[in-house]
Amino acid sequence: MSERTSIADLSAYCRELGRRARDASRSLATVSGEVKNRWLLSAAESLLAKSAAILKANQQDLARAGEYGLNAAQIDRLKLTPPRLEAAALGLRQVAALPDPVGRVLEGSVRPNGLKIRKLGVPLGVLFFLYESRPNVTVDAGGLAAKSGNALILRGGKEALHSNTALVDVLQSALKECRLPVDSVQLVTSTNREMVGELLKLKEFIDLVIPRGGESLIRRVAEEATMPVLKHYRGNCHVYVHRAADLDMAERIIINAKCQRPGVCNAMESLLVDAEIAPAFLPRIGQALREKDVEIRGCAQTRQFVPWATPASVEDYDAEYLELILSAKVVNGLEEAIVHINRHGSQHTDAIVTNDINAAQRFTEAVDSAAVMVNASTRFHDGFEFGLGAEIGISTDKFHARGPCGLQELTTYKYVVIGKGQIRDG
Amino acid sequence: MSERTSIADLSAYCRELGRRARDASRSLATVSGEVKNRWLLSAAESLLAKSAAILKANQQDLARAGEYGLNAAQIDRLKLTPPRLEAAALGLRQVAALPDPVGRVLEGSVRPNGLKIRKLGVPLGVLFFLYESRPNVTVDAGGLAAKSGNALILRGGKEALHSNTALVDVLQSALKECRLPVDSVQLVTSTNREMVGELLKLKEFIDLVIPRGGESLIRRVAEEATMPVLKHYRGNCHVYVHRAADLDMAERIIINAKCQRPGVCNAMESLLVDAEIAPAFLPRIGQALREKDVEIRGCAQTRQFVPWATPASVEDYDAEYLELILSAKVVNGLEEAIVHINRHGSQHTDAIVTNDINAAQRFTEAVDSAAVMVNASTRFHDGFEFGLGAEIGISTDKFHARGPCGLQELTTYKYVVIGKGQIRDG
Repeated sequence: MSERTSIADLSAYCRELGRRARDASRSLATVSGEVKNRWLLSAAESLLAKSAAILKANQQDLARAGEYGLNAAQIDRLKLTPPRLEAAALGLRQVAALPDPVGRVLEGSVRPNGLKIRKLGVPLGVLFFLYESRPNVTVDAGGLAAKSGNALILRGGKEALHSNTALVDVLQSALKECRLPVDSVQLVTSTNREMVGELLKLKEFIDLVIPRGGESLIRRVAEEATMPVLKHYRGNCHVYVHRAADLDMAERIIINAKCQRPGVCNAMESLLVDAEIAPAFLPRIGQALREKDVEIRGCAQTRQFVPWATPASVEDYDAEYLELILSAKVVNGLEEAIVHINRHGSQHTDAIVTNDINAAQRFTEAVDSAAVMVNASTRFHDGFEFGLGAEIGISTDKFHARGPCGLQELTTYKYVVIGKGQIRDG
Repeated sequence: MSERTSIADLSAYCRELGRRARDASRSLATVSGEVKNRWLLSAAESLLAKSAAILKANQQDLARAGEYGLNAAQIDRLKLTPPRLEAAALGLRQVAALPDPVGRVLEGSVRPNGLKIRKLGVPLGVLFFLYESRPNVTVDAGGLAAKSGNALILRGGKEALHSNTALVDVLQSALKECRLPVDSVQLVTSTNREMVGELLKLKEFIDLVIPRGGESLIRRVAEEATMPVLKHYRGNCHVYVHRAADLDMAERIIINAKCQRPGVCNAMESLLVDAEIAPAFLPRIGQALREKDVEIRGCAQTRQFVPWATPASVEDYDAEYLELILSAKVVNGLEEAIVHINRHGSQHTDAIVTNDINAAQRFTEAVDSAAVMVNASTRFHDGFEFGLGAEIGISTDKFHARGPCGLQELTTYKYVVIGKGQIRDG
């Protein structure tokens, strides 16, 4: 549809998209795991067989990257290469190898009156996935949605439209080949900006929205959506060095958490150091971070031991930098660290380094975050590292799913009750 | 605060209420199960010891019931009696006897690199519970919230204000006695109607809203809330009599599901009968329902066999009557029944009566409801009957919790990761 489509037409178009997804989801919900896996493997194969066409479409997007004002990092994210397509195909095969989350028995019992109660995993229904740039995410999301029995509506960035169209063509051909409803995966090809708002109204057709991108996109979606949203805004992750820490271990963890991949949500953004060990630890960690080109923004006490650090503003303690900048603060013990993290953190991932078992227990109980680490890098908070398989994102909400969201988190449950004619007395 | 308080004052008052609840929730989250149980038992005891004062407060509410225009059924719901207080106290003791949902290990593994991953039950934080009439619900909600480690903000109906105030006094005294934060249970005593709207804005302080009452209240809350809502709108529950049904069993189940307690959400509202057995079954079930004073609103085919039935409108198939009225429809087999239920039902509870194992399996897989029953009354869909203990409501949503919402559903989880200094390579 054109950019000048009226809102009424747009609304009708979106409703039709939603209705098709809902219909597809009703079929998908009862498809066997075998058929879903066949689809995943067939899509993986086609992805490689049709790689020439996909790369050509990607070239069209790359040719326009300048028009869209993408920077070098964004262009790199947009770019598809044979190894990247192979990785995407491998991802589909890995999802095929995971256990089917649909139909698994979560709980079960027989009541005194003989009723058999079973709580079974079932698909959510229809997922609406919004994302920016990276076209390989199209394939990842398609695989996770199909395996979990959910129909999927995809809306990628306009800068990746040709690539996403080519990739969804591959996914849909594989659906046809496996006699699955082709509307199981639909791509919104209109770049009309009103479209997203219209889709976010359709709670009768869409069960869950998953936005992935910048904080402003996610906030807009959370504001407008009439259905649940699975999201995280920011990852302002802390490492707290307790007075009973092994300082070599603390240094190793901090360098890894901050520097190994600074642009991701589970990278460290803020350092808390116990006052008692600040004189021993801050000079050495300051030096180690300096060698890695990390800028430190610290409190007055921090700057006493790291003279090249700049002063931290209040905003610094709330910031997710996603680059080689670190906020730092000296705290008077465990409780102050906990209060600071619960106040300034983003409930994503926070770590303590300590050899004191009581401090570790208190920290893990009192810090209200999706993942709390003891003597480990914050970088481990992800579905693969937790042994849960591929994920569609990490949730910092408390409702439904928290932490890595993979196949299980894309399902809900129903109760199935089997009787022999039981009726209720009281 | 008075009825004439300004919105600015109201907003400040609500924020203070929210802040106190948030603070209390931070303490409650790490309180041991032993202390929470001591509180529950102490509150149960006080409820009986202070019953005279509670009943006197209830008398004040009852004296005004006329002013508020309550009907006989509503007055009965409002009324507290010594047996009803004993039942409420027993409820608290039963909750004390349930396992603590906080800290339970939901999943756990050790990764190849030695990281120990544990997924642990933790409280949601702050619950905001809105309800109408029945003051004993105040006690039930207080018990479930405390046991699950959540702080609670209660807002009851204005017609029960004196009763609720007296009951919350008892709960708060018991909190003080057990040295728990008194703000763990707070009652909104202002009857200002703007109050609810202000509280629904406070997503930084309130993690979950639970409205219980009429559909209009629930819709208003779902519209306005900025935080998740746990709810069900309606219970339009079906019983489908398949052609392979035991007709005696079908009659027993239908009479129970419709007549045993017609005013509750898991009561039956709609009957579907296979065309093949309609001539044998409809006359007898029509007669049996007539003897129970049930009005039947049916399709043309139904009325052929039940001449005293009135015609059903389209609205009838969507209706939750909550009284002795039943919609009825003859369907051409299993698939038509499934489509009808998924279109007109409320995703609450739907049952099939059949001796055919394939029909039962197809029905339980394809009907998209919180509970799907085979050869059992819809009336069994409740936390106690499922063996899950007391519940705060039944959810027809798919997100977070579906079906009975008890202690487990009032919790979320966090990941706790224990390492020995592990850092990430790739």
